Amino acid sequence: MPERIGKRTIVINNKVCIRAAAGIAGHKEAEGPLGQYFDRTYSDDKLGQNSWEKAESQLQTDAAKLAVEKSGLKSSDIDVMLAGDLLNQCISSTFGLRSLDIPFLGQFGACSTMAQTLLISSLFCDSGACRRALAVTSSHFCSAERQFRLPIEYGGQRTPTAQWTVTGAGAAVIDSSGEDSFIKGVTIGKITDLKIKDANNMGAAMAPAAADTILSFLQDTGCSAKDFDLILTGDLGYVGSELLIGLLKKEGIDISQNHNDCGKLIFDRKGQDVHAGGSGCGCCGSVFCSYIINKIKKGELKNILFAATGALMSPTSSQQGESIPGIAHLLHITAK
Amino acid sequence: MPERIGKRTIVINNKVCIRAAAGIAGHKEAEGPLGQYFDRTYSDDKLGQNSWEKAESQLQTDAAKLAVEKSGLKSSDIDVMLAGDLLNQCISSTFGLRSLDIPFLGQFGACSTMAQTLLISSLFCDSGACRRALAVTSSHFCSAERQFRLPIEYGGQRTPTAQWTVTGAGAAVIDSSGEDSFIKGVTIGKITDLKIKDANNMGAAMAPAAADTILSFLQDTGCSAKDFDLILTGDLGYVGSELLIGLLKKEGIDISQNHNDCGKLIFDRKGQDVHAGGSGCGCCGSVFCSYIINKIKKGELKNILFAATGALMSPTSSQQGESIPGIAHLLHITAK
Repeated sequence: MPERIGKRTIVINNKVCIRAAAGIAGHKEAEGPLGQYFDRTYSDDKLGQNSWEKAESQLQTDAAKLAVEKSGLKSSDIDVMLAGDLLNQCISSTFGLRSLDIPFLGQFGACSTMAQTLLISSLFCDSGACRRALAVTSSHFCSAERQFRLPIEYGGQRTPTAQWTVTGAGAAVIDSSGEDSFIKGVTIGKITDLKIKDANNMGAAMAPAAADTILSFLQDTGCSAKDFDLILTGDLGYVGSELLIGLLKKEGIDISQNHNDCGKLIFDRKGQDVHAGGSGCGCCGSVFCSYIINKIKKGELKNILFAATGALMSPTSSQQGESIPGIAHLLHITAK
Repeated sequence: MPERIGKRTIVINNKVCIRAAAGIAGHKEAEGPLGQYFDRTYSDDKLGQNSWEKAESQLQTDAAKLAVEKSGLKSSDIDVMLAGDLLNQCISSTFGLRSLDIPFLGQFGACSTMAQTLLISSLFCDSGACRRALAVTSSHFCSAERQFRLPIEYGGQRTPTAQWTVTGAGAAVIDSSGEDSFIKGVTIGKITDLKIKDANNMGAAMAPAAADTILSFLQDTGCSAKDFDLILTGDLGYVGSELLIGLLKKEGIDISQNHNDCGKLIFDRKGQDVHAGGSGCGCCGSVFCSYIINKIKKGELKNILFAATGALMSPTSSQQGESIPGIAHLLHITAK
């Protein structure tokens, strides 16, 4: 049964675990430092489809089916799936997961979606609302670029703070009773708005939300940042990660030695010309569901915090002069 | 504690209730048959804002604050808010609810959002994951029209099956222990696709999902359709409602005497020139959170099913030749 502690944290008391997960990615990600760790990579970023949006849907289909296959279960063994993405009306999720025939709850957390879907899945599994849940997300460089910024063909110059949207997807099967990779607690994020308006600096827009959520978790639980092998954020990239470390330092918390970010891990910053790092729902989706979860399952990581951040904006809100609020949802995960 | 019965239904065992709710609407809705029942209506559909999108955000702010006020609680008494809307990247919810300072989980269920947010809220309250939750949604005729169809100024001719997007919002405070308006059970919808492609006939696209979810609930619980004072759908309108009744009749289930639809209730079909009825997240959002919940609280409705439907599409998916999958989430609500 879930149990509230402190202001915003919920402890998971049953043996809720990540039974299996799959992280898949495109060709640029395959050429990066984590290329060998993904469950599957594609040389054709269209995945045989005739549009970038359909290619992104296919990423969700493939990641979801692979995670279910790795879990040793069938779709019919899973009671609910939670998924979301960056495309308008979350069409990657709808069309990507339509064939699975599993009850569906669509989520919108922007790039925090992997953590958000895992968080709700784990609360549902802990409470008995479901026995098993499937958490899925994706992003695609080309579908995101043309929806949020400019036509691909335009070839616009990118600012130094800009991040590169990952072509990739992550899917995880959450089980209510398992033997490793336990989700021990969660902290739900708040909409945090420090009035950043630069749509080419998402790291700065999202860092305050990550700081707020991590701080809340530590205060609620009485844990110290040093208790964790790794404090992993989603896609703050180089600029946002530095800001996060600075914001927490002001609160007397030093995460400089055990923090990392999926947006930093996924690309070779200089060799791959990605400026401030990777971004997109599929950034931490693919990295967490392959590289990270495998390290947890092998016992190389024993006790981690995973806080994925999202920028809650649209081109319309930015054109109308709005700022870019951020959000960060957190999971506490242990190997045993 | 939530308890699964049958294939897809979850029984809520604690006294989870709708403590308070607020339904608000625009001037056209105020002039309709339910005008007197809304908690607040606006003569200016821009609500003093300088864009339709900001006006829609203001609808969420107002509905949420009014529901919290009616509950006798403060924002700080509420542990989580769940909200979503039709705008790209759900910006009505983000910007509308940013000032409430409550942990937030963004949802995307298209026009099923009111049921989806109530459903997750009630599971969280039943399990102890939160003590109280806030469920919110909205739509606005002008922001939806220009995003999904044509510029307002174009004044395009509408087809007979077209529905009119409601300008309105609904918000409800869910409490883990209450005295009336109990949520007794929920059924999570599946993505249901009968390959309807006509974006001017959403009722037809969504009716199969409503039939599937209502049928699942009845099978899982052993209830008969006749057990309910009212089987209420979200925004099937006139065309979709007739299809739903027909689809269930084929399964041997007669809901012709106790079915109604918020899209039929909210407008005077002929007098207000709305063709097939109302639609949008704010349609059942505003109607359920005012007219319906007040009837439950007065004991005029004792035992109802509320199944809100959503069309999971975007202009991009339709332009790329995709069909329009539907989804429907269901709540079983009793007065005492």
